[in-house]
Amino acid sequence: MADQLIPRREMQFQLYEVLDTAALCEKARFEEHNVETFNAVIDMAEKMAEELFLPHNAVADKNEPTFDGTKVSMIDDVKVAFDTYRESGFIAGHFDYEDGGMQLPVTVMNACAGYFLAANPSSTAYPFLTAAAANVIKHFASEDVKNAFLPKMLSGDFTGTMALTEPHAGSSLADIRTSARLQEDGTYRVKGSKIYISGGEHELSDNIVHLVLAKIPGGPAGVKGISLFAVPKYRLDADGNPDVRNDVTLAGLIHKMGYRGTTSTALTFGENGDCHGYLIGEPHQGLRYMFMMMNEARIGVGYGAAMIGYRGYRYSLDYAKDRTQGRAAPNLAPEDDPTPIINHGDVRRMLLAQKAYCEGGMALCLYGSMLIDEMETETDSEKRTELSQLLDLLTPVFKAWPSEFGPKANDLAIQILGGAGYTREYPVEQCWRDNRLNPIHEGTNGIQALDLLGRKLWQHDGKGLQVLLARVTADMKRAETPRAQALAAKLKPYLDKLGALIQQAAGDLRSDKQSVLLTNASCFLNIFSSCVVSWIWLRQANVAEQALAHEVGEQDVDFYEGKLAAAEYFLNWELPLVSRDIEVLSTRDTTCNDIKASYF
Amino acid sequence: MADQLIPRREMQFQLYEVLDTAALCEKARFEEHNVETFNAVIDMAEKMAEELFLPHNAVADKNEPTFDGTKVSMIDDVKVAFDTYRESGFIAGHFDYEDGGMQLPVTVMNACAGYFLAANPSSTAYPFLTAAAANVIKHFASEDVKNAFLPKMLSGDFTGTMALTEPHAGSSLADIRTSARLQEDGTYRVKGSKIYISGGEHELSDNIVHLVLAKIPGGPAGVKGISLFAVPKYRLDADGNPDVRNDVTLAGLIHKMGYRGTTSTALTFGENGDCHGYLIGEPHQGLRYMFMMMNEARIGVGYGAAMIGYRGYRYSLDYAKDRTQGRAAPNLAPEDDPTPIINHGDVRRMLLAQKAYCEGGMALCLYGSMLIDEMETETDSEKRTELSQLLDLLTPVFKAWPSEFGPKANDLAIQILGGAGYTREYPVEQCWRDNRLNPIHEGTNGIQALDLLGRKLWQHDGKGLQVLLARVTADMKRAETPRAQALAAKLKPYLDKLGALIQQAAGDLRSDKQSVLLTNASCFLNIFSSCVVSWIWLRQANVAEQALAHEVGEQDVDFYEGKLAAAEYFLNWELPLVSRDIEVLSTRDTTCNDIKASYF
Repeated sequence: MADQLIPRREMQFQLYEVLDTAALCEKARFEEHNVETFNAVIDMAEKMAEELFLPHNAVADKNEPTFDGTKVSMIDDVKVAFDTYRESGFIAGHFDYEDGGMQLPVTVMNACAGYFLAANPSSTAYPFLTAAAANVIKHFASEDVKNAFLPKMLSGDFTGTMALTEPHAGSSLADIRTSARLQEDGTYRVKGSKIYISGGEHELSDNIVHLVLAKIPGGPAGVKGISLFAVPKYRLDADGNPDVRNDVTLAGLIHKMGYRGTTSTALTFGENGDCHGYLIGEPHQGLRYMFMMMNEARIGVGYGAAMIGYRGYRYSLDYAKDRTQGRAAPNLAPEDDPTPIINHGDVRRMLLAQKAYCEGGMALCLYGSMLIDEMETETDSEKRTELSQLLDLLTPVFKAWPSEFGPKANDLAIQILGGAGYTREYPVEQCWRDNRLNPIHEGTNGIQALDLLGRKLWQHDGKGLQVLLARVTADMKRAETPRAQALAAKLKPYLDKLGALIQQAAGDLRSDKQSVLLTNASCFLNIFSSCVVSWIWLRQANVAEQALAHEVGEQDVDFYEGKLAAAEYFLNWELPLVSRDIEVLSTRDTTCNDIKASYF
Repeated sequence: MADQLIPRREMQFQLYEVLDTAALCEKARFEEHNVETFNAVIDMAEKMAEELFLPHNAVADKNEPTFDGTKVSMIDDVKVAFDTYRESGFIAGHFDYEDGGMQLPVTVMNACAGYFLAANPSSTAYPFLTAAAANVIKHFASEDVKNAFLPKMLSGDFTGTMALTEPHAGSSLADIRTSARLQEDGTYRVKGSKIYISGGEHELSDNIVHLVLAKIPGGPAGVKGISLFAVPKYRLDADGNPDVRNDVTLAGLIHKMGYRGTTSTALTFGENGDCHGYLIGEPHQGLRYMFMMMNEARIGVGYGAAMIGYRGYRYSLDYAKDRTQGRAAPNLAPEDDPTPIINHGDVRRMLLAQKAYCEGGMALCLYGSMLIDEMETETDSEKRTELSQLLDLLTPVFKAWPSEFGPKANDLAIQILGGAGYTREYPVEQCWRDNRLNPIHEGTNGIQALDLLGRKLWQHDGKGLQVLLARVTADMKRAETPRAQALAAKLKPYLDKLGALIQQAAGDLRSDKQSVLLTNASCFLNIFSSCVVSWIWLRQANVAEQALAHEVGEQDVDFYEGKLAAAEYFLNWELPLVSRDIEVLSTRDTTCNDIKASYF
């Protein structure tokens, strides 16, 4: 297949027709770049993903990492892929020139990431987690800590992890028990247990730098007393090279349903009382630091979900064009040749749904990436604030919506392949298993719903929402053709209802109706997300209609017609599903709130 | 856990409060039974399922059957469970006394089946497939064939399979190529390849009897030329014992995503031209015979999906009561104790959805089982015809609805467990993987939708629909309390819209709108199924309200309140989702019909 992962035509459309990624080159930060350098980096990513990451995706799933009590072993292909990735400088792609980075926009880095995530989300996790951890260190760590770890993380000599979750506390970080005691030399001794730490142990790098949330004894209770520490697997010698083993031990590998190529670990810190940790930034600010990096991480999760979905979509599309079965009108006689299953209406429905979900999720998260780039390069502080507010508001949607609909797409891919899809001889079942992690990690989608309805909506006096609505309205006005206008007209009443529900929620949150409202938070997330994604599809439809107004080649006609069909599918088939949610919220349905535990 | 699988309270409710299973004892066929004997059989099934099937469910998943080129090996526990099952006489449970059976109602046998399916769907498949194949032989085979195979299948000395699907043809049975040539001795020589044959090879029994669809050369084209054959793994000697190996070879085991304990096989018949087969019934009637058994098999698939769903539901319920995390109002301070997660509204929503899906699916399929029992024992031929027509109409719903919603329930169970749910250390991910087969086999759900809208609805001049609507209306009238009446009132407009859509469809099917209609068949199945399941929940709510009108114990109050809450959840949260489908069908949305393959 020419385009095994994401067709370049699709990526070009998103980057340069829907988004104006080229305009970023006019910003001082990116002035050394141009569209050609962007595309060259994406070329490299695509090639590397196809040649080094894709081929061992299923192999790593079938041969997951093992632990013999001393070392974690995994198939060699992972290290080959990791080394090529790091040697190409991708880990530092978004970082500053002065850090040794390529100073590329997040949008371009995410375009690249799309190829790696679609090809092999498990092997991709190691360098991605490293870049995320390095980003935290860059922003908040002291010069000493930065000097010790950042360069080696950006080169991939050291890898990084995020060690937040503890077995007893789960999502409730307020309850973590890991402690960090200050020593006379200014370092800390860390003690505690962490679980589900991705990349927490392996032999891919010379050292692993764990970013550990822990409490300094005597600090405030709850989340306000959480600090952040860099805790290396090996302590560093005077030259900054890995030396003796730090007191961090692998309690065990966790065996997951999917994402099997990524080690998921239970780690014990300070079993022998000698786990050295280095405070990052100020005491008790750990959660704030982590959350300042969270927007990007959450876009990453949603985007990954869309990309794994996309892989399954493309696979099932090829299958549906190739596999013949049954007859299609008017050739229904037994003597007629069997027809490719794409000619069955219900198969087209399942393909179109996948297209709407995955390209919708992809466009959504690239939009989010662009917000980050614009925010980081905006010189007008008012505009920068607006961008930041919009980004905050949309982050739960970037995370939750694609991570809900990416697995749905994979589910449809399995269904299109039928019996074959249910076997491990075909890749779609692994896509589903891999993708099922995404609604869970980086804050479950239930938590995203609470974050949106209970917090994000009201931040900055609701400014984020105003910015969003202004942008949506502007794009609705841009709909000039009958087909685009029909889409905008379809969205309008839902936006109106969303507005009314937000007003109602504002009152309910300050009353005894709060509990009912928050119990039904997922309904609000459904409505809000579906409106946002409808808008994202309207934007794509607008571009398609504008393009079709000019003379374009046959392949482009097909491409843009496909965009319009997917937009129409989304607005006509998916958006109306939230009528249920509107009903539940506007009537303040108490079914789920009132049921007692003993009734189950 | 006292009730590891399905609580007996729930089973009692379904059998004796919602359905009048006790009344079956008044029928001549079941006159030797009473409620005590029914319950004793269910006791035995529950115990056997918990003690012999449940413990190796995960073990069999982790150690799937292997093939060394000669023999298939699997963990010993499967044979222990299988032998105990067959020695208890369960395979012949529904069969006549004269066949050596227990002559038990299908409803009671399915109550038993529920425990086995929830405990271990993979190991359960071997005896269940045997009973299904034996049923075909009993009804359609000649005395010779029957004598050769039936007694030994009912005792479990021989097992059975259904060998329909071929690699190139998939669901399109018209295109099968397996041939059967008549020999002078009246036997046939079978030649061809079959795929996805569950239980197609193993060492659990002395022989395996494959029911093979094949074409006798010279017969009509398409489905009208398909005949059915019994093809044993070992030919029988003069005494009817397994003798030399027949020419049936295992081309390979298929490795599935779930249901791993059941061997799924690719079989080659007649590689050496010497595969003996025995015609069942008349030539060219094979598909008809298979389909006459299909109603029961399809209820079985739906019911199994509900039961695997139920297992996950109960597990996640226990987890949610036990696992503490976060705080619940009014105790929100860090110093307050963490709360069991069932106290979080969104967790209750996910539990209630699971309850509504699984108990709804269970009640639906037990209702279907009861229709079979009533039909088989009805002496009034007009009433018998009515029952048969209703059963035919509802079969696509029995199959498709629970197999869609059972996996959805398992998905929610994973979400409730969070990170833990994603690991193989907890059972819910296996439930999901196992259950994912059910929307695919025994006719994909897309095929069920076409079967319903294209055929079942119009059979017998729409009599099945009339019978259904009369029953639904009667139960709506039985709603006497305000809560039950509110449920009935909620259902009413959807039934009206369903009626209008059926009228519209009747016209469209005979016009050039046929293609658009059939492309959107899944929408019709959604509406129809949701109305049916709403009715099934209304029936349960009616019983609950009637019970609560009397003095009942505290546990019973909880139980019935739970039923009402689940009914309300279904009618208020699930039924309204079909508004989208109503819109699509009533506007004759062409999005999925019109999109060209090149647009994707």
